[in-house]
Amino acid sequence: MAQVINKRIILKNYVNGFPKESDMLLNASATIRLNLPEASNAVLVKNLYLSCDPYMQFRMRESKAGSFTPGSPIQGFGVAKVLDSRHSNFKKGDFVWGLTGWEEYSVINTVGFLFKIEHTDVPLSYYTGILGMQGITAYAGFNVICAPKKGEYVFVSAAAGAVGQLVGQFAKLSGCYVVGSAGSKEKVDMLKNKCGFDEAFNYKEEQDLDAALKRYFPNGIDIFFDNVGGKMLEAVLLNMRFSGRITACGMISQYNLEQEEGVRNLYQIIVKGVQIQGLIANNYLHMFPKYMEMIIPLIKQGKICYMEDIAEGLESAPAALVGLFSGRNVGKQVVAVARE
Amino acid sequence: MAQVINKRIILKNYVNGFPKESDMLLNASATIRLNLPEASNAVLVKNLYLSCDPYMQFRMRESKAGSFTPGSPIQGFGVAKVLDSRHSNFKKGDFVWGLTGWEEYSVINTVGFLFKIEHTDVPLSYYTGILGMQGITAYAGFNVICAPKKGEYVFVSAAAGAVGQLVGQFAKLSGCYVVGSAGSKEKVDMLKNKCGFDEAFNYKEEQDLDAALKRYFPNGIDIFFDNVGGKMLEAVLLNMRFSGRITACGMISQYNLEQEEGVRNLYQIIVKGVQIQGLIANNYLHMFPKYMEMIIPLIKQGKICYMEDIAEGLESAPAALVGLFSGRNVGKQVVAVARE
Repeated sequence: MAQVINKRIILKNYVNGFPKESDMLLNASATIRLNLPEASNAVLVKNLYLSCDPYMQFRMRESKAGSFTPGSPIQGFGVAKVLDSRHSNFKKGDFVWGLTGWEEYSVINTVGFLFKIEHTDVPLSYYTGILGMQGITAYAGFNVICAPKKGEYVFVSAAAGAVGQLVGQFAKLSGCYVVGSAGSKEKVDMLKNKCGFDEAFNYKEEQDLDAALKRYFPNGIDIFFDNVGGKMLEAVLLNMRFSGRITACGMISQYNLEQEEGVRNLYQIIVKGVQIQGLIANNYLHMFPKYMEMIIPLIKQGKICYMEDIAEGLESAPAALVGLFSGRNVGKQVVAVARE
Repeated sequence: MAQVINKRIILKNYVNGFPKESDMLLNASATIRLNLPEASNAVLVKNLYLSCDPYMQFRMRESKAGSFTPGSPIQGFGVAKVLDSRHSNFKKGDFVWGLTGWEEYSVINTVGFLFKIEHTDVPLSYYTGILGMQGITAYAGFNVICAPKKGEYVFVSAAAGAVGQLVGQFAKLSGCYVVGSAGSKEKVDMLKNKCGFDEAFNYKEEQDLDAALKRYFPNGIDIFFDNVGGKMLEAVLLNMRFSGRITACGMISQYNLEQEEGVRNLYQIIVKGVQIQGLIANNYLHMFPKYMEMIIPLIKQGKICYMEDIAEGLESAPAALVGLFSGRNVGKQVVAVARE
């Protein structure tokens, strides 16, 4: 089979702080053969959907381990179709999700983080989010770690993000009262009108976060699912109830600072007997079967609203990734490289 | 029976910040009858040992609930002998521990926090600490919340205090490696030579707490039992291992500040999947029988070192309490009002 052009998004150099579009470039000079040599254990895929995630900025920085390689394609989670396979777990025509490259075609040599998609009667792009890492993150971080009880008061920060919108809906399914914060009117409307949050507010319009929280939670907060950290966490600590639980999932307010802000009010942890648990989603991958059993029927019955923000074409990927850090996206940011 | 003088330690006025001796006064003008009227549900006790605890400063401040009453005796945990009882749970001659007054004799009308002492063949003063609230605090905060495994690395701050010295020894009994920090050479020596800590250091002699922790824990910290908060917590967070556990028991570094210091490095909670649990000892009182089953034999066999700093006489109580906040005491600070 002849070689074809393989367009790629290349990291030009290590990045300091939030990435800019100019830190990446579209390269259209590489070619690839669309079959694998006999002596291989790899899988050749055509990439369909790529996931844009906040953590990726850390892999763009120069650090000891896990950094991307300048001059090579960005790596991330994605959905792909198997074109050729020398690995017994996968065969031509399979749809898969897992770690792949920001390019049209990828040869995946290490399949430890590649999973065959069993349910193909739902949108395949969902495997970059609700049916992938963000799904298990929301499920483990809320349902498992926070062990919600009916009637509890739940607050979600960055609630319009890929994880936050799920946490809010899982909270409603658990019989909780849930309020989300987000950074625009459009996102607030989405949370209230589409995702079923009881209330939502735009944190940028609040002078005093503590006062805002007291307005929405006159009885205090039992569960806080935190994607933001910093001043929001500081204000939430003042409003936690006894035996409250906080899942620390992200701290996007801190990622672009030279030095992390100090957080006050930690003494409230002792006064109220609060638990804070840092969430490493990889520790919960064994729960995927249980999670899929819960989530697939909810999706098919239309009982979950899952908002995606799909950018078309590999060339749109740098802007899509960069947009995460200014909150441009509404819902899960995905890049559609190809539809099939 | 005639009335007798009942010397009392009175709170003069609400206190801001750490208490001073002049915030309290010894009053020797009150009298008390050493028997109870028939129509009573109270218990009359002779106080033997009083407990000096850091939390008491908060009850000396003016706040919504739980404050002491200016003009009335200080309240706190203590050990006492029952002189008369109109409550069916107690009889004359019983030894009890629980909430009592800083005075020679107390009439205890609410016995919800008064417990009969079953084991009297150990020093009765121990019921102000190792056999009382500090014991259950150390047990619940370390053995229950942190669920230690053999070989784990444990760090205890304010390790020479009533709780810290127990946590270190419970860590050794669990097969852990344990290091403590304290604020004087005498305390460091006590931890190493009497309490069996593997290492101990004087935090006041360390310019760089992060560097000190890296020296004592080149492989990182699995469990941190925190009595101090602030900069020490900030440094520990940089040195936590994956799935590390922190019990937040006290934040004595913060109690005298106008405003709590901000704590940095909270992002490490997410990176390492760390758990922080605020400890409310009252939530674990149901574990006393199990704890006593463990601790009484250890005390009788001499397998636990428990250091007390006993001030003689009720009149020494204000100085003993105030000394807590400058770290004057070595071991659990107790006031002996009477020996029997």
